[in-house]
Amino acid sequence: MAMFTVALAALAIPSVLGQLTGRGFPDCVNGPLSNNTVCDTSKDPLTRATALIAAFTLEEKFNNTGSTSPGVPRLGLPAYTWWQEGLHGVASSPGVNFSTPGTDFSYATSFPQPILMGAAFDDDLITQVATVISTEARAFNNFGRAGLDFWTPNINPFKDPRWGRGQETPGEDPFHLSSYVAALIDGLQGQEKYKRVVATCKHFVAYDMESWNGNFRYQWDARVSQQDLVEYYMPPFRSCARDANVGAFMCSYNALNGVPTCADPWLLQTILREHWNWTSEQQWVTSDCDAVQNIFLPHGYNTTRERAAAQALIAGTDINCGQYYQELLPRAYAQGLFNQSVLDQALVRQYSSLVRLGYFDGTSVPYRNLTFNDVSTPQSQQLAYKAAVEGITLLKNDGLLPLRISNGTNIALIGGWANATTQMQGNYAGVAPYLHSPYYAAKQTGANVDLQVVPGGQGDPTTNSWLPAFAAANKSDVIIYIDGIDNSVESEGMDRYNLGWTGAQLDMIGQLANYGKPMVVVQMGAGQLDSSPILNNPNISALLWAGYPGQDGGVAIFDILQGKAAPAGRLPTTQYPADYAAMLPATDMSLRPSNKTKSPGRTYQWYDGKAIFGFGYGLHYTTFTASFESQPSSYGSGSANNTFSISDLTTSCSEAYLDRCSFQVMNVDVRNTGNVTSDYVALGFLSGTFGPAPYPKKKLVAYTRLHNITAGSSATASLKLTLGSLARVDTNGNTVLYPGTYTFVVDLEPLATTTFSLTGSPYTLDHWPQRPDAAEQDTDYFIGNYGSTYGQQLVM
Amino acid sequence: MAMFTVALAALAIPSVLGQLTGRGFPDCVNGPLSNNTVCDTSKDPLTRATALIAAFTLEEKFNNTGSTSPGVPRLGLPAYTWWQEGLHGVASSPGVNFSTPGTDFSYATSFPQPILMGAAFDDDLITQVATVISTEARAFNNFGRAGLDFWTPNINPFKDPRWGRGQETPGEDPFHLSSYVAALIDGLQGQEKYKRVVATCKHFVAYDMESWNGNFRYQWDARVSQQDLVEYYMPPFRSCARDANVGAFMCSYNALNGVPTCADPWLLQTILREHWNWTSEQQWVTSDCDAVQNIFLPHGYNTTRERAAAQALIAGTDINCGQYYQELLPRAYAQGLFNQSVLDQALVRQYSSLVRLGYFDGTSVPYRNLTFNDVSTPQSQQLAYKAAVEGITLLKNDGLLPLRISNGTNIALIGGWANATTQMQGNYAGVAPYLHSPYYAAKQTGANVDLQVVPGGQGDPTTNSWLPAFAAANKSDVIIYIDGIDNSVESEGMDRYNLGWTGAQLDMIGQLANYGKPMVVVQMGAGQLDSSPILNNPNISALLWAGYPGQDGGVAIFDILQGKAAPAGRLPTTQYPADYAAMLPATDMSLRPSNKTKSPGRTYQWYDGKAIFGFGYGLHYTTFTASFESQPSSYGSGSANNTFSISDLTTSCSEAYLDRCSFQVMNVDVRNTGNVTSDYVALGFLSGTFGPAPYPKKKLVAYTRLHNITAGSSATASLKLTLGSLARVDTNGNTVLYPGTYTFVVDLEPLATTTFSLTGSPYTLDHWPQRPDAAEQDTDYFIGNYGSTYGQQLVM
Repeated sequence: MAMFTVALAALAIPSVLGQLTGRGFPDCVNGPLSNNTVCDTSKDPLTRATALIAAFTLEEKFNNTGSTSPGVPRLGLPAYTWWQEGLHGVASSPGVNFSTPGTDFSYATSFPQPILMGAAFDDDLITQVATVISTEARAFNNFGRAGLDFWTPNINPFKDPRWGRGQETPGEDPFHLSSYVAALIDGLQGQEKYKRVVATCKHFVAYDMESWNGNFRYQWDARVSQQDLVEYYMPPFRSCARDANVGAFMCSYNALNGVPTCADPWLLQTILREHWNWTSEQQWVTSDCDAVQNIFLPHGYNTTRERAAAQALIAGTDINCGQYYQELLPRAYAQGLFNQSVLDQALVRQYSSLVRLGYFDGTSVPYRNLTFNDVSTPQSQQLAYKAAVEGITLLKNDGLLPLRISNGTNIALIGGWANATTQMQGNYAGVAPYLHSPYYAAKQTGANVDLQVVPGGQGDPTTNSWLPAFAAANKSDVIIYIDGIDNSVESEGMDRYNLGWTGAQLDMIGQLANYGKPMVVVQMGAGQLDSSPILNNPNISALLWAGYPGQDGGVAIFDILQGKAAPAGRLPTTQYPADYAAMLPATDMSLRPSNKTKSPGRTYQWYDGKAIFGFGYGLHYTTFTASFESQPSSYGSGSANNTFSISDLTTSCSEAYLDRCSFQVMNVDVRNTGNVTSDYVALGFLSGTFGPAPYPKKKLVAYTRLHNITAGSSATASLKLTLGSLARVDTNGNTVLYPGTYTFVVDLEPLATTTFSLTGSPYTLDHWPQRPDAAEQDTDYFIGNYGSTYGQQLVM
Repeated sequence: MAMFTVALAALAIPSVLGQLTGRGFPDCVNGPLSNNTVCDTSKDPLTRATALIAAFTLEEKFNNTGSTSPGVPRLGLPAYTWWQEGLHGVASSPGVNFSTPGTDFSYATSFPQPILMGAAFDDDLITQVATVISTEARAFNNFGRAGLDFWTPNINPFKDPRWGRGQETPGEDPFHLSSYVAALIDGLQGQEKYKRVVATCKHFVAYDMESWNGNFRYQWDARVSQQDLVEYYMPPFRSCARDANVGAFMCSYNALNGVPTCADPWLLQTILREHWNWTSEQQWVTSDCDAVQNIFLPHGYNTTRERAAAQALIAGTDINCGQYYQELLPRAYAQGLFNQSVLDQALVRQYSSLVRLGYFDGTSVPYRNLTFNDVSTPQSQQLAYKAAVEGITLLKNDGLLPLRISNGTNIALIGGWANATTQMQGNYAGVAPYLHSPYYAAKQTGANVDLQVVPGGQGDPTTNSWLPAFAAANKSDVIIYIDGIDNSVESEGMDRYNLGWTGAQLDMIGQLANYGKPMVVVQMGAGQLDSSPILNNPNISALLWAGYPGQDGGVAIFDILQGKAAPAGRLPTTQYPADYAAMLPATDMSLRPSNKTKSPGRTYQWYDGKAIFGFGYGLHYTTFTASFESQPSSYGSGSANNTFSISDLTTSCSEAYLDRCSFQVMNVDVRNTGNVTSDYVALGFLSGTFGPAPYPKKKLVAYTRLHNITAGSSATASLKLTLGSLARVDTNGNTVLYPGTYTFVVDLEPLATTTFSLTGSPYTLDHWPQRPDAAEQDTDYFIGNYGSTYGQQLVM
């Protein structure tokens, strides 16, 4: 234990913190700021913000480095709270203030969790949803009930079904997430002069674990190869920064290969800002809450609190969620640990962002006329319903579905989710205008509904409440069992250990199936459960997965059950057998199977076992065929039609980033050969033995959702392939185009297949900047990721 | 998946279940039962209960096999709920009904959790506490607010600090638990004609795990050697059954070496009833809730639900907590899986027990005159305070304690427990008459108390609320930090993974210590935390451990801090370094260290590392010396005075169980050589290289607590050794007296030491009945304890 003493009398405590009730706009007309350039709308955001910060005293600068900024009363700069959440609707969070029930701003549209919206594979839908969220956020902001930046999306790939926050993501596939997040940011931020709101891509990077077997997110060190990092963990963030120009990033709790991400200049400067050209001063990085503190403890990455804080600031963490910057930067500055220019840069970034949002521009900002009339409109409510319908995925159907439910049908509605309301929202939710439970929806059908909310096994594992459920089943015409997992099992801070339905649930399901009645199971929750006992039970006719379906979830489920809507969702994650959890620790970040560690591999690309249901699986009420309208062809080259020269491909493209160069647009004719109008998700996968071994089984390179294809008719799915679609990542993290034979297929079966070849020498599309040797960094020591003994080693 | 079909129409659902509001006594004067022998007080309980059950129809028998018995309205036999809890006071549970606040029976005395009462090492105290609980329970019963049997104590040894329910036990040492539990049962049951209440020793056996790394208590198979089983896991239960004659047992969720305990005739018949002579028909075994169901799923120990239920009944599980028996025994009986005599036996045991409790004897039962005036009396309240004071353990003191607190002293009272109320009760609690928090107690001192409830890191890990705490510390005269863990981290269903204080807590503590003010840390919770950073920080003067101190916990803590009471508690568990959690899985049941598994061993007896604080550690405000008033001597033998012949020892004793034979009473003169009146706990440990290697470092064989030894005076501690104290357990589970040299010491330092020898041949005090080969049992298959794939394998 080091004997260091701090001049504690120097600790300034900003007295205005904790009193941040004011959320008004700055007065650029009559206020003290009116003469400051920040109020000059003719100037660019950087110039304006720089002028503002120049007017701050040093103490005022320090005071405004945290997530709750007191502003500068002296200058008429209001307090501002940076921490708003909006994962699937304007959400309860420090900066969002829902009003009391019955009044304006007492609710906002509550969409399904991203995991279910991911299952829709419909980027247009995502943009529409995000546009509603940003519209409602602006309405809240106009009445002092929210800020203008939102700490969403969570775009870490859902690589392990145990992860408690997988529900917040669209799934396990990095291409899917990259495409989804670009569509989302488009809806949140817009493309206008004034950003609608600022989105924040989190958690950068390789976060994806809460608390698993003694590994806590605050202290965990993710060990990731450069190949896995670039191939799997980075793409959604590259999409955010380089392609979608997101306004903000959040660095994560975990360390990456020994360095806490918020203290890592290679991550925050070299990769994020330089390599991905995320250089606008309107963009900032916030720490997760309180990741700057965690650099000191428990990471133990620096010897003093002051050095840890200075290190984060210098690395490029512009905002600290928490009070650590506000408390420690003054002391760190007094110790000469950073220059004022670094502090200024962080503040300029923050306020440039607010300038770009029109914060200083008064009512000339077009969104300023939005009111509560623009919140939870009929269109938005319909969209929330549509998002749920599009995501719900049919996994088994022996022909029972769609169900004929009429007045007088006796439904036994059983299970822990049978009357779910807030349960349907999952985490990071706001207050919904209504929550239509499965029970509510069942009653709308005119059926006689015998509701039996049997806890099932996630909460109460006892049989105390079972007998009435059996009585209900016995007199029913159809049994609908709806359960699975919820936020009591998977949530922030809580990873799972078990991938199976509990014994009590299976016992209940099995006993219900023994009644021989028509029976449907609806599996809820984000992390998949091994549903093979349900799949294999001939007395259970159908199985649906419905994630966390949001405010209209019950209606969406029952509309699909009855055929009022046709299911076309696809699983956005692999459903592994239950024993998968015993095969590899959640801490293992490797994607590829390994003989050494006995890992079976991760995701549909690499898992070498047999999935219960694979990524992309989903049934319909109709049947589809697909055929390519044309084959891949290399016009203008001397080679055969389906052979492409790598040099031709790379030299003919003028994109700044070669992976974005177009390769081919594959138009697929999709025909509905059944009897029911239905959406169809076209998934395009690529496979082949090109590039470095081992090879993934296949990888998703394109998808699109076709809507309402009527029976007997067809529609065209345009699947756009880029050079990045064809590329592989080598062990140094470089993205390379390799010669070889490529097979492109549509759907899982597949419904259509074609091949083409690339010839010539490998060509590097992207040179990955190597990280400086961690040993050369200012690392005092490094704490391992399991069984850390930091308690005894560290200064306190 | 097997294709079996059940004649479901035969499923009888007792309609009276779920309507069990009546808790009255049977009317043996005017009711239909008055002519039944059960009402004949001249007959013995077995005869009376047998007559009652003979009057039941078969359906009525089945109806009364669960924890909520409808009784037999036809016979005037009231409904009865078997499930009452009373771990540390009459507790909220299905059979206990607290009234609305402000009315009679709205509260009951709430004692500290057993882990803190265990730290008192005061068996007389435990009997007094248990007597209050049984008195208050009787008062509740008289007014229809509780039954007469209580599912307490939890007496599994607290072998792993990660166990979420360790708080419910008195600690890690099997001798300590055996002695404690006998004292407890004495207070709960009494020794009179009418039992006060029936106690239930649980969870039989080798339960001690909730949910750890995918191992769930409902399906976990504890693999235990016969040596460890008899030496460590069984002794508290042997004490319950053989020595204290407890009224009931509870079989556990887990399997033991492949067999679910509730389905194990070797455990429930051979060991419990035969070997331990627990043969009274007034004694019964209940399943944990719903351990009978778990035999089928998830244990998968039998092929059908009916066979699993019949198997449990035949094995000796008399009551099923849940509804599984009530639902399935009729079908199992129809299948010929058991005889009615087994069912009758289970029911006779239940009702014999109620006869013994005076349930049928009207107001002639002496406890029937107890009222709410007997609940939470001033004496009981004082006892709850005393129990907390006696358990609180001083771990570090540089002389700061006892604190001088006067009017105007500025106390900064900081931490997640600073204003704890229900938090102080832990789990299985009732409604307390009051909850005197640390903040309440601090204010009683007349000091100026600046309360700062900083979550610290167990809940909210952010620094958002830290600054006011630093401000409070800055202007304080003394800093008292009170935190640790609570039921959000350790509880039923939730084991821990981390044995350290969190990084955020250590950061907060370290920053507070930097102020250079006098500072005390109070560590709360049952599972020990590695407090070495606090021990090693010279700016922190004192450290107390206060467990879950109950209704007057805050006052107890502050009275000790101020010296109004002197600390004399001793740690009832080992405080391991934080990295201990990484050294062995919680599933490892072995006590001894192992090169093969790299286990460092368990408990102070076997752990081969250096503990932060050892079992039995505890400081005082004074100093003590100890000396033996006489040395061990073998009168009447031909050998030297301190040498004993094994054959003499074993032949001179007439006890039915040789391990209970007295060996020596070691009288120890304990002198208070300091300035403060204080209790002193005399701990007697034995060590030596006798019997099978390896040898434990030492083992506790006797203890007693001396009260209020004034400065300069002395008192005598009588430490009673039996032949069982000297014995070891061999690999077959036999308890054997071995020749060799024995060292007996008082206290940890130690304060006094003596040696003696045993000569002659080893002599077996107890022949352990071997379990029939599990392979010969009716086991269809066996599910391993990790990564079970039961979901796919089992019939449903």
